[in-house]
Amino acid sequence: MAYRTTAHRLDRDQAVRARILDCALQRVAAGGFAALTMQGLAEDAGVATGSLYRHFEGKGALAAEVFSRASQREVEALAQVLQAPGDPAASLAAGIARFAARAWSSRRLAYALIAEPVEPEVDVQRLRYRDAYGALFAALLEEGRASGAFAPGAIAVAAACLVGAIAEALVGPLSPAVRRDGSPNAALAEVTTALVTFCLRAVGARTPDLEIAP
Amino acid sequence: MAYRTTAHRLDRDQAVRARILDCALQRVAAGGFAALTMQGLAEDAGVATGSLYRHFEGKGALAAEVFSRASQREVEALAQVLQAPGDPAASLAAGIARFAARAWSSRRLAYALIAEPVEPEVDVQRLRYRDAYGALFAALLEEGRASGAFAPGAIAVAAACLVGAIAEALVGPLSPAVRRDGSPNAALAEVTTALVTFCLRAVGARTPDLEIAP
Repeated sequence: MAYRTTAHRLDRDQAVRARILDCALQRVAAGGFAALTMQGLAEDAGVATGSLYRHFEGKGALAAEVFSRASQREVEALAQVLQAPGDPAASLAAGIARFAARAWSSRRLAYALIAEPVEPEVDVQRLRYRDAYGALFAALLEEGRASGAFAPGAIAVAAACLVGAIAEALVGPLSPAVRRDGSPNAALAEVTTALVTFCLRAVGARTPDLEIAP
Repeated sequence: MAYRTTAHRLDRDQAVRARILDCALQRVAAGGFAALTMQGLAEDAGVATGSLYRHFEGKGALAAEVFSRASQREVEALAQVLQAPGDPAASLAAGIARFAARAWSSRRLAYALIAEPVEPEVDVQRLRYRDAYGALFAALLEEGRASGAFAPGAIAVAAACLVGAIAEALVGPLSPAVRRDGSPNAALAEVTTALVTFCLRAVGARTPDLEIAP
C-alpha cells in the first residue's frame, strides 16, 4: 500500500511538472521570457506559486528548462533535414530554409530562443545548443568536403560561422519591434534566399545559386 | 561658496564613478562578469559597497555600463579599419583580422563581451552593439557593391550574417575552457584565415583568397 501511494504520488508530481512546463512554453511563445512570471504561470497551471518552487529552483531554472525543450525540438527538426540522404549543398539550403520557416511560424518563441535578453541560466543553455547546431553543420561539412560538394576550410570555424550567421540574420526580422512593419511571408522568402546564398558561397559550395524549395 | 562646494562635489562624484568603472573593467578583463562582485569591486575602488549603489542602480546596470564602454572601443577600432580608404575586400579582411587579434590579446574580456552568460541588462547591450557592428558592415557592403568588389545580395541580411559569423567563430576558441589547450597565436592565425575566407566568399568577393596581413 505504501509503495502504491508513493508511486501514485510520483506520477502525479510528474504530471504537474509536465503541465507547468507546457504552460510555461505557451507563455514564452505568446510573450517571450518576459511573460514568464511565476504568478501568472501558477494561475495558468492551476497550482499555488509555492508549488512551482517545489518543482523548479526558481525562474531562471524554469526558463532554462523551457529553453532546452523548445531548442531540442529545433535541433531535431534541423537534424532531420541535414541528415537526409542527398546532395550536401541541397541539404544545407533545405535545412536553413526549414529553420527559418519554423522560426517564422513561431516568431515570438524563435526570438525568445535566439535573442531575447534573459537570465544567465538561459544564456548557458544558448551556448550549449549553439554547440549542438554546430555539430550538425560540422558533420554536413565533412560529408560535403569528402564528396567535393564543399570546400569549407577549417570545419570547426565554418560550422560555428554558419550557426552565428543563421541566428544573427533572423534576429532583426524576428524582433517584436520589427514584426509590425510588413508582410512576414515576403520577408521570410527574401531573408531565406539571402541567407542560403550567403552560407552556400561561404562554404565554397559548387552550386552557390541553388534554387530553394519554398 | 555654495556653488563652488557643489561643483567640487560633482567633480569628486565623477572621479569616483570613473574609478569604479575602471576597476570594474579590470575585474571583467581578469575573470569575466562572474568576477564582477559588488563587494570585491568596492574593495578595489576603495569605496563602501553602499557608495557603489549611489552610482549604479545595481550589478546589472553596472555590468551593462562596463559592457558598453568596452564594446564601444571595439566598434571604434573596427570602424577605423573598415572605413579606411582602399579595396573593400581588403578592408573587410583587415577588419576581421584586427577584431580577432584584439579579442586574442584580451581573451577573457572578449569572451565576456561576446558570450559569457550574464544579466539581461548586458544582453540588451549585446543586441545594441551587434546592430552597431552590423551598420559598419552594411556600409562596407554598399561600397563594395557599388565598386563591384562584392555581390552581397540583400545587404541587411549579409551584414547581420557577418556579425553573427565573426562572433560565433570566436566563442569556442576564446572560451576559458579551451584556452588551456594550445598555443593562442597559432590558433589565432588559423581561425582568422578561416573566418576571412568564409566571409569574403559569403559576400561574393571578387578576391576570396586574399592574403591577410599578419
